[in-house]
Amino acid sequence: MSKLEKAIVAIVEVFEEYAGTDEDKRKLNNAELGALIKAQLSCPEFKDKVDEGDAKEALEGIDKNHDGQVSFKEFSKCVANLSEGYFKKKYGKEKGGKCKHHK
Amino acid sequence: MSKLEKAIVAIVEVFEEYAGTDEDKRKLNNAELGALIKAQLSCPEFKDKVDEGDAKEALEGIDKNHDGQVSFKEFSKCVANLSEGYFKKKYGKEKGGKCKHHK
Repeated sequence: MSKLEKAIVAIVEVFEEYAGTDEDKRKLNNAELGALIKAQLSCPEFKDKVDEGDAKEALEGIDKNHDGQVSFKEFSKCVANLSEGYFKKKYGKEKGGKCKHHK
Repeated sequence: MSKLEKAIVAIVEVFEEYAGTDEDKRKLNNAELGALIKAQLSCPEFKDKVDEGDAKEALEGIDKNHDGQVSFKEFSKCVANLSEGYFKKKYGKEKGGKCKHHK
């Protein structure tokens, strides 16, 4: 499998690992979500590289329908938002037309 | 870094690798997108595990504003949709309201 395919499989596996501790293996309950965030999204080396506002938004928005249950769809969107926050911090906000000529 | 953090970094790195072949390093043009899909999302072992409709939708929806340029935001959403397609094929469609009472 390619690097991207492996990353996708890893996202699913992390969700499975944490969602699988109660009877509903397809949803993260509040405790499972807390455990996931603590273990998987708390490395300072990573956090330092993600736009703070984006990270906050991604994590607060994770349970959009506020039922205390996070589906894989909600989780995968959160991961997309976090990766966008990582990209944004690295490259700056999307504007910067001035640098168009640099190679 | 955790498994999830590494997956997020990998998604950014794959985008960078393919977006970096022309002057606009922050967007995938059509050729770059084609090269990325060919090299990174064509492994039969992976494709077999993704819901076909979801994969089609994810890849067709990648350039939503149809400007021939794929931003990281669009790309990360596509990756989220692909991972959802992978999850869905593994666990079946989200329905099963009958089980609402289970813990």
